[in-house]
Amino acid sequence: MSEVYGVPVEQVVAPLRDLRDLGRYMVEFPYGDIYSRDGLAVRDREIATIAMLTALGGREPQLRVHMASALNVGLTADELYEIIIHTVVFAGFPTAINALNVLRDFLSQQEKEA
Amino acid sequence: MSEVYGVPVEQVVAPLRDLRDLGRYMVEFPYGDIYSRDGLAVRDREIATIAMLTALGGREPQLRVHMASALNVGLTADELYEIIIHTVVFAGFPTAINALNVLRDFLSQQEKEA
Amino acid sequence: MSEVYGVPVEQVVAPLRDLRDLGRYMVEFPYGDIYSRDGLAVRDREIATIAMLTALGGREPQLRVHMASALNVGLTADELYEIIIHTVVFAGFPTAINALNVLRDFLSQQEKEA
Amino acid sequence: MSEVYGVPVEQVVAPLRDLRDLGRYMVEFPYGDIYSRDGLAVRDREIATIAMLTALGGREPQLRVHMASALNVGLTADELYEIIIHTVVFAGFPTAINALNVLRDFLSQQEKEA
Amino acid sequence: MSEVYGVPVEQVVAPLRDLRDLGRYMVEFPYGDIYSRDGLAVRDREIATIAMLTALGGREPQLRVHMASALNVGLTADELYEIIIHTVVFAGFPTAINALNVLRDFLSQQEKEA
Amino acid sequence: MSEVYGVPVEQVVAPLRDLRDLGRYMVEFPYGDIYSRDGLAVRDREIATIAMLTALGGREPQLRVHMASALNVGLTADELYEIIIHTVVFAGFPTAINALNVLRDFLSQQEKEA
Repeated sequence: MSEVYGVPVEQVVAPLRDLRDLGRYMVEFPYGDIYSRDGLAVRDREIATIAMLTALGGREPQLRVHMASALNVGLTADELYEIIIHTVVFAGFPTAINALNVLRDFLSQQEKEA
Repeated sequence: MSEVYGVPVEQVVAPLRDLRDLGRYMVEFPYGDIYSRDGLAVRDREIATIAMLTALGGREPQLRVHMASALNVGLTADELYEIIIHTVVFAGFPTAINALNVLRDFLSQQEKEA
Repeated sequence: MSEVYGVPVEQVVAPLRDLRDLGRYMVEFPYGDIYSRDGLAVRDREIATIAMLTALGGREPQLRVHMASALNVGLTADELYEIIIHTVVFAGFPTAINALNVLRDFLSQQEKEA
Repeated sequence: MSEVYGVPVEQVVAPLRDLRDLGRYMVEFPYGDIYSRDGLAVRDREIATIAMLTALGGREPQLRVHMASALNVGLTADELYEIIIHTVVFAGFPTAINALNVLRDFLSQQEKEA
Repeated sequence: MSEVYGVPVEQVVAPLRDLRDLGRYMVEFPYGDIYSRDGLAVRDREIATIAMLTALGGREPQLRVHMASALNVGLTADELYEIIIHTVVFAGFPTAINALNVLRDFLSQQEKEA
Repeated sequence: MSEVYGVPVEQVVAPLRDLRDLGRYMVEFPYGDIYSRDGLAVRDREIATIAMLTALGGREPQLRVHMASALNVGLTADELYEIIIHTVVFAGFPTAINALNVLRDFLSQQEKEA
């Protein structure tokens, strides 16, 4: 594995170094074993991820990271918005509103950097 | 709205009658308002749904219903399996194993009926 | 404390004996300390309880017990139905549907016994 | 619907504009369909809401909004405190303590504004 | 790795075969990578596991499996009971009562088999 | 009870005063009734506590408090790290990463104070 979603693996791994072995497991297990599986497109994996992180609640830092990944693998900002709205049916309004606030912060941060 | 995923709406609504107003809301809000939105394909919505129902846990009856919907809108049994495996990263093994058991029951039931 | 909601305390405690100390704590802490507090009517406490048990999911046996308590302290079956519908906004449809099925079983059981 | 809890609907809706369609759904579904139902007093609905938001955890912004609504529909600050204490039995101490901190911030903010 | 808690690895793996790759990941990641780490005794790992599975709720099949593992690595039935009681403080009574019922079933099953 | 984990009870109780009755219940029920039970060592209780607070998510303030308690009763910082890694198997990576960040903040705060 030399790239994760077209990003050099070293760049992905660097911020995980601080997590010590947990960072290593993240590279080996989710990225190495799971994301690289053939049976589901990475775009589809990110749909599942955004939905889960929203619905479970309390995982805002991870949600933000995966919003960036999601855009990298071909989802649009509007689709992220739709996934969040979709979660309302299964997990109610509060977690969706929290996720929408993360999305808005993330997008306005992106705009500033552009 | 005369069809939900190619199924006549009457057939979808009938089992919801027992839920009285909650059944009516399900037709109006998730099916009427949310699923029919343009911004995300129904196939993508079902990916999000299977992932959430697995990760939240304790929603096995709904998981089974949505496994059938997922197959109807173009997901394969193997992709359902992959979505469930994918949830391990974000919600751990126990809920994934529970969902996998629901999938196995569902598929063997389907086989019997075929 | 000689009665819990008009039921002799001995009758409440008996089924808790099997839980050993956990049963004793239930008598002492929730029933002894919390339910008996002056600041909130027991009817209001049962509204909160039914809503929480529904929204948290996976607590069906306790939900059933508290449906009986709720009727004992003046809530009606229709109000239980309304509380469950109300949870949809905050926790989504699946847990509400599961709770509604518990309510239906509970009410039909009650009818048989009457 | 021209008012929500005696507040002009426009004033309720304005902050939801940012949420785009999710804001519209909140007006239509929770406020339009659910809160306006006859079967349960709005005071009782807010008891259920405060209890759920506390017990589910991670929904502090919504908890704060509903503390204001709860006072508007006739609950007292002491009753909010009691509802939070009541959740300990069903969801443990940590979420209750978090909710109590939200309540304290909210009440001291209110005092400053008064 | 030829044994997991003194049980031949083949015997552990066999029932996981049905889970296909998920079973393989369970052998490789939790059992291979995590449980075998030096920094925490397996007895301590099982204390953490029983507590989590109880508190999260809806993971009864896994709770039962780990009750057996826990006894294998030196915890007593009374300690399992204590761990479950301990969870009440952090997750409330309902999940503790559910776990206690799993423990009782598990122990009486064990007695029959002995 | 004059001490909690070797800390004078007054020092434990003082910060709980603000919580009014909830603080009193915390002294009486978790500390008085549960932690003081004979059947499980306090070190083992803290293992269970750290694991639960991590896996449930959204309980960061309590996690921090119990990291201090855990060190007081004989767990090492490395064992805390191991418990958090262990939770990945049962609750996924996001809550573990969040807990690890709490641990890092807590340890660097401790270093500064030393």
